[in-house]
Amino acid sequence: MELYPAGRIGQAAAAAQEAGIGALLLTPGPDLRYVTGYEAMQLERLTCLVIPAAGSGLDPFLVVPRLELAAAQASPAGGLDLELVPWEETGDPYRLIAGRLAGVTGTGSVGVSDRMWALTLLSFRHRLPGTGMVLASVALRGMRMRKSAAEVAALREAGAAIDRVHARVPGWLRPGRTEREVGADIAEAIVAEGHARVDFTIVASGPNAASPHHELSGRVLEAGDAVVVDIGGTMPSGYCSDCTRTYAVGRPPAEFAAYYQVLKQAQEAACLAVKPGIAAEQVDSAAREPITRAGFGDYFFHRTGHGIGLETHEDPYIVAGNTEPLEPGMAFSVEPGIYAGPHGARIEDIVVCTDDGFERVNNVTRELIVVDI
Amino acid sequence: MELYPAGRIGQAAAAAQEAGIGALLLTPGPDLRYVTGYEAMQLERLTCLVIPAAGSGLDPFLVVPRLELAAAQASPAGGLDLELVPWEETGDPYRLIAGRLAGVTGTGSVGVSDRMWALTLLSFRHRLPGTGMVLASVALRGMRMRKSAAEVAALREAGAAIDRVHARVPGWLRPGRTEREVGADIAEAIVAEGHARVDFTIVASGPNAASPHHELSGRVLEAGDAVVVDIGGTMPSGYCSDCTRTYAVGRPPAEFAAYYQVLKQAQEAACLAVKPGIAAEQVDSAAREPITRAGFGDYFFHRTGHGIGLETHEDPYIVAGNTEPLEPGMAFSVEPGIYAGPHGARIEDIVVCTDDGFERVNNVTRELIVVDI
Repeated sequence: MELYPAGRIGQAAAAAQEAGIGALLLTPGPDLRYVTGYEAMQLERLTCLVIPAAGSGLDPFLVVPRLELAAAQASPAGGLDLELVPWEETGDPYRLIAGRLAGVTGTGSVGVSDRMWALTLLSFRHRLPGTGMVLASVALRGMRMRKSAAEVAALREAGAAIDRVHARVPGWLRPGRTEREVGADIAEAIVAEGHARVDFTIVASGPNAASPHHELSGRVLEAGDAVVVDIGGTMPSGYCSDCTRTYAVGRPPAEFAAYYQVLKQAQEAACLAVKPGIAAEQVDSAAREPITRAGFGDYFFHRTGHGIGLETHEDPYIVAGNTEPLEPGMAFSVEPGIYAGPHGARIEDIVVCTDDGFERVNNVTRELIVVDI
Repeated sequence: MELYPAGRIGQAAAAAQEAGIGALLLTPGPDLRYVTGYEAMQLERLTCLVIPAAGSGLDPFLVVPRLELAAAQASPAGGLDLELVPWEETGDPYRLIAGRLAGVTGTGSVGVSDRMWALTLLSFRHRLPGTGMVLASVALRGMRMRKSAAEVAALREAGAAIDRVHARVPGWLRPGRTEREVGADIAEAIVAEGHARVDFTIVASGPNAASPHHELSGRVLEAGDAVVVDIGGTMPSGYCSDCTRTYAVGRPPAEFAAYYQVLKQAQEAACLAVKPGIAAEQVDSAAREPITRAGFGDYFFHRTGHGIGLETHEDPYIVAGNTEPLEPGMAFSVEPGIYAGPHGARIEDIVVCTDDGFERVNNVTRELIVVDI
């Protein structure tokens, strides 16, 4: 089964029709890659795949700057049955698209990629006066949220790659080294273990571990530190990894070791809650319940997780208020944390909802890893 | 002189007032970093600096997800006289901002970061009905386009770093190696020579050199290939590098060597045209004229350059139709190319307009570099 099957443009056109959107306007980013396999950079020169709604009578077409034409032809998009429409440096690609859509957008609205830049969106608005603008995810989220077997395999591969990085982390956590030095080792390993690029490297040591999105600082590791290491990258496939483990540099404070066990049980309970039909927010409750019961509820002040695929953060979000039922193929992080101060901990795996339960794509130990110093 | 001086929020507020914009809404990206020094990732959770126009009576404030609060406080933004407003996971930060702006946006419009995601922009539109939306660059481009002495120094540092990478490229260009292998060497060197991250690595060999935005392929280098190497990254300062040199693997075809000399003269002529008061498009003409005269005009089918700073591509663009006069501190690429097929060439330097002329920040040789094989 292919990771980027050829039929997705047609499926997107049908989804647009069903959503009552006249056309989808997809600029470089995860939506464009999902439907075509084409990985392009979002830049000020417009590249845009236009997918008129099924039944509109207009075929999809890909508008590209002339100097990107050869690259687009050589990309997976070049292998699809898709007209490529180049534009010259002094041309106006927005006018070009508006002209072709003149009949179709009479239906009232277009769906724009969620990550389309304001620069681009406002140019479209100028050229498509009177046309409503909604997010393309209105049509695409259902497709992107339910991962195919090939996508799940790609997430497994990403998970295995980041697990290999975590397996090497204890060797880099030494008293006297800075978070930034450890982060540099990790960044190098993320690429060496098979990612195409590094997306983030959080090394939060000692009191910094109480800040969930602390990144890297010049803080020097000390004996007794707990260190939250939350790292991820994007594989050549386009699919992302994201995994957190908490380490201790020598023996950690006793109260830390105690709540770490609560956290580990909470993460396990949340994973065990995952199965088709369960609301996303129930996974969040399952993580929160044991932490609250142990008296640490105020120290777990973020959602339990986020979907993952071609983006590190995407639908579905595992958060109170999201009543959407889980379905097989949905993939997301399960990452409760306890930030009690002056230390903190988090455990994160990427989990896939299966036909009757869940599968973790991260399998490196979830025990507190005490680095012998 | 500081790279990110503290007074920029006030300057931006004044510029917004002058542009007739009620407030600027700056999400993570180059605009936010420019005015505060804060480097944050654009994510689905809203981080937004709100800068009401000068004279509105409302002070600027930075809205951040609660779990980013500690990171924001520790960032340069935490050192400014700026209220940080955290929001909880299940809160609505758009409503929060709309409420505070209720009086101010009566002025009619807000300016949004050029790179704000559609996801964010459309959420603001929903919460600010009746408020016009324009690009923040309407207010900020004048500031960002004229680089301070500290910014020029940062561009020089970036230029020197990428020059050091180019100096190592001949050692990696060997018959039998693929573009992708050479690209991996270059990516590693971009970081090793001082960049915080790799932005792009174009290695276009043989016939691929005729495609200006070809990136990397599995093509194996052969004796006689011309190879266009266009590479860049972002420094820890936030400022970008971008430099192209063309190499020959052994002796190149005679007709290639001939038009390379035309290209080199064109690039030199375009640099020499740079001085205050000259229209941006005159630099483009200066590059185009010798190429056209030599009969290669149809093979130079892209603009001559783009501004550079916190973004690889930003204002001013060196393109026909841009009549904006150059001013001291403007920084941009000068990168004519000739894509005659079955080979091609490009030479690119970053150039800064000085008080009476120009300064190149790239100083590695512009001669055709023939690699001895």
